[in-house]
Amino acid sequence: MVSKAGQQTFGSACALRRAVRAGLMRSDTAGKAPGYLQGNLAILPKAFAPDFLLFCHKNPKPCPVIGIGEAGSPALPQLGDDIDIRIDVPGYRVFRGGNDFESAEDLKEMWRDDLVTFVLGCSFSFEEALASAGIPVRHIDAGRNAPMYMTSIDTVPAGPFKGPLVVSMRAFKPTDAIQAVLLSARQRLAHGAPVHIGDPAQIGIADIMRPDFGDTPVMEEGDIPVFWACGVTPQIAIRTCGADLAITHEPGHMLVTDIPAEAAENRLSGIGAALAINR
Amino acid sequence: MVSKAGQQTFGSACALRRAVRAGLMRSDTAGKAPGYLQGNLAILPKAFAPDFLLFCHKNPKPCPVIGIGEAGSPALPQLGDDIDIRIDVPGYRVFRGGNDFESAEDLKEMWRDDLVTFVLGCSFSFEEALASAGIPVRHIDAGRNAPMYMTSIDTVPAGPFKGPLVVSMRAFKPTDAIQAVLLSARQRLAHGAPVHIGDPAQIGIADIMRPDFGDTPVMEEGDIPVFWACGVTPQIAIRTCGADLAITHEPGHMLVTDIPAEAAENRLSGIGAALAINR
Repeated sequence: MVSKAGQQTFGSACALRRAVRAGLMRSDTAGKAPGYLQGNLAILPKAFAPDFLLFCHKNPKPCPVIGIGEAGSPALPQLGDDIDIRIDVPGYRVFRGGNDFESAEDLKEMWRDDLVTFVLGCSFSFEEALASAGIPVRHIDAGRNAPMYMTSIDTVPAGPFKGPLVVSMRAFKPTDAIQAVLLSARQRLAHGAPVHIGDPAQIGIADIMRPDFGDTPVMEEGDIPVFWACGVTPQIAIRTCGADLAITHEPGHMLVTDIPAEAAENRLSGIGAALAINR
Repeated sequence: MVSKAGQQTFGSACALRRAVRAGLMRSDTAGKAPGYLQGNLAILPKAFAPDFLLFCHKNPKPCPVIGIGEAGSPALPQLGDDIDIRIDVPGYRVFRGGNDFESAEDLKEMWRDDLVTFVLGCSFSFEEALASAGIPVRHIDAGRNAPMYMTSIDTVPAGPFKGPLVVSMRAFKPTDAIQAVLLSARQRLAHGAPVHIGDPAQIGIADIMRPDFGDTPVMEEGDIPVFWACGVTPQIAIRTCGADLAITHEPGHMLVTDIPAEAAENRLSGIGAALAINR
């Protein structure tokens, strides 16, 4: 996501995380540290970690793994030297065995030595690439969040993790849509190529103007809607997995990593497969 | 284009060209020498060659240059050791200063020492890549030619060469359309990524079921139409350039080269820029 006019930005991911730690930054991270890879957060007890990793591998488009912590450790050295996942994300959602959640500003009190942190790629770096290519991203230009929809497409289940594929939608004029397909395909860790283009009804979306999450879409005359797998997918799957504790970020309030977005594909590809989970 | 069931195929491009020379092969070349790069033909007097090359460079999607001959020479050593362009194409169209043409089986009598041969990439190798990826190409499966349309998009003119962009259309289910965008983008010499997707009216196509060239399209429920720049574009431009003699191939009756289609992008990219025209 690109900088909106007049919004606060930070010169580095590290500077942004320091502001979060100091309680000076509690808003969404979209466009706040341009050029740095951001990620979705999922924290689960280690008993659930192997199945969740399997779920991510079976559903790589909604769940591109960019980092995994050791059980009990709040560090993620592969994503930033000094990351402490308990205090570096500007907003958390804490689930205790169901769909209800409480919001939290940090995880210091609730941290446990069996918690495993997963960081999954998000669409922000892909949206930066679109903007760099001169392709309007309409919800950003309108100061809105992307519209997101539950679909009739099922994820591939793994253990207790299952549920519908959630997609985000961006509308473009057709020539830009073709470029968006090409640019996004290069960013496998930012959900890769789209999963659908055109008719929303084909993937179970009854009314494109009424998304399940995010904001009302911005569409112009002649636009074609393009749908990408969305990081909300694993968050839905986590809610029903049966864990007594599961933690995600507040939507849009991402972990900002030290990885330059442009280098992410080379540096982090295959990281999920290479890491063993410390059971 | 892939082999249709039961059709004649040749084990090599060279074998196919020998059959053409012997008068044993006068039909279209689609799928007849799988794996070999095929090309559209344009032969012009050398006075027109610099502007035509400029036209190709200004319009690289419809006119990807894969080979250029020396003035007066029927050889194209970069595309095949023994090519004689006067006798190696199974059907020619000869224009003498207008839209009317005569058909010819060879160019032996009409060859002149001021003629320059251009070979331009065609969509066959891209269609082979789609079929290899398991993506149905509906007109091939139906034994038809691709539907082609004049559009409201103008080419970039160069000297006397100008005219509308002609596109070919292939319809896919949306997930296949996304893959088709990605696969075709890798084949710049086979027209590259599409120029349009979705609503035909946006590019001036009034009725998708009534193409200007080729056959009636095959579309299935839920399909989305995808449009690629087409090699008919330069053929239209050639007809009005004012040359007293211009020669193209019969549609579908291509020059089959010795270049393996998979290696074409590496071997031939930039060839247009690297070659000097022998004025």
